[in-house]
Amino acid sequence: MIGPFGGITVAVILNGILSHSERRGDPISLTVNFIGPIADAPFELKVRLVRTNRSNQHWFAELAQDSQAAATATVVLATRQDTWMMSEARTPAAPRPEEVESWSAPAKPEWLGRYDFRFIRGMLSLSDQPATDSDTLLWVRDEPRRPLDFLSLAAIGDVFFPRVFVRRQRLGVAGTVSVTTHFHADSSSLARQASRPILAAARGQRFYRGYFDQVAELWSDEGELLASSTQMVYFKD
Amino acid sequence: MIGPFGGITVAVILNGILSHSERRGDPISLTVNFIGPIADAPFELKVRLVRTNRSNQHWFAELAQDSQAAATATVVLATRQDTWMMSEARTPAAPRPEEVESWSAPAKPEWLGRYDFRFIRGMLSLSDQPATDSDTLLWVRDEPRRPLDFLSLAAIGDVFFPRVFVRRQRLGVAGTVSVTTHFHADSSSLARQASRPILAAARGQRFYRGYFDQVAELWSDEGELLASSTQMVYFKD
Repeated sequence: MIGPFGGITVAVILNGILSHSERRGDPISLTVNFIGPIADAPFELKVRLVRTNRSNQHWFAELAQDSQAAATATVVLATRQDTWMMSEARTPAAPRPEEVESWSAPAKPEWLGRYDFRFIRGMLSLSDQPATDSDTLLWVRDEPRRPLDFLSLAAIGDVFFPRVFVRRQRLGVAGTVSVTTHFHADSSSLARQASRPILAAARGQRFYRGYFDQVAELWSDEGELLASSTQMVYFKD
Repeated sequence: MIGPFGGITVAVILNGILSHSERRGDPISLTVNFIGPIADAPFELKVRLVRTNRSNQHWFAELAQDSQAAATATVVLATRQDTWMMSEARTPAAPRPEEVESWSAPAKPEWLGRYDFRFIRGMLSLSDQPATDSDTLLWVRDEPRRPLDFLSLAAIGDVFFPRVFVRRQRLGVAGTVSVTTHFHADSSSLARQASRPILAAARGQRFYRGYFDQVAELWSDEGELLASSTQMVYFKD
């Protein structure tokens, strides 16, 4: 919650690579490190193709403001081939999106208005009592609706409130330092999902001496695991 | 299972940063991308300090052989401060290490002999029947014993057999393309653990069109979450 929505930074960096003329394949893995505060101001994004292999491609990216590094990223793209397939992770039980009330988000920060959030559990209600865990489950989609692509999928991995706020049910200072997204979807998965809501689950595993993690999964409304994501987040008491 | 043990590459890269004179802090997050086969031959490791902040530090590393990039990495170091603390992830139920038989590893690949493995479940027994899942739980420690440090912890995150081999109970072609380790331990956690076995759990979530993921947690023998790790792995039928 320091600076702009981290998901847009992630998407801007990924877009710099996916829109490059030398791009080969679709994203498999994306790690973005947040190095310093990002201002609502001009920025420069440099992308470097490290190597193209037969079936995958490796990129490095650096986003700078005022000539100072604000974020770095590594991206792996791949051309997928048909193989044996299996899904082991279990889709969380959830009511259908139309059975869950849409959240009336506050006007600020503005990015909250760019999503339709339907919380099933783990809302940040700022009640007096701390929660018994930091688990959150919700339906979420872009607002206004748009067909899902790799950019919006990567951004949605960052829509969760900081787990420490949810667990303690109080606001504080927190900011992602590193986020890794693994893509399990290909373009046919995205086309099937189209603009319908995604089932998004997140939890923290350990909060320890200034940092906690957040593990998340994003599911299609047909129960297909589209992406998983992990982050390390700085926090202050 | 293409080339040398990935964990040693991860540890070598991290060591290049942790032994640098400008290092400030301990590892929080480490992502290594495997770009091409690594030979048992000389290599060059270049590390670059991207930025030092008040409480953390960002590094980029590139490992090359024959002037060609073989791996890249980004690392976040941090100076931890005391804050509110909580552990949410539950330590898997397991017998004590001395109650589990030590595995007689085959002579090749040689790195198997550098660890003491005690499998509780999810062994690669190459039975005729595929397994019902790819979950593995084991006790593991360096062989010969040595006190745990951040390098060995990072390497241990890669000791698991490829999840697709465990699930299908057959060997094949598989190689990590990207691995991210999040460190929940500080130096006091490492000192407490010393050279005793670590409880290591791993599972795959989705195997899809040439890639699968592996999610892992490493626990102290007192039930402290030391590190978590995720990877994306290439595989062929």
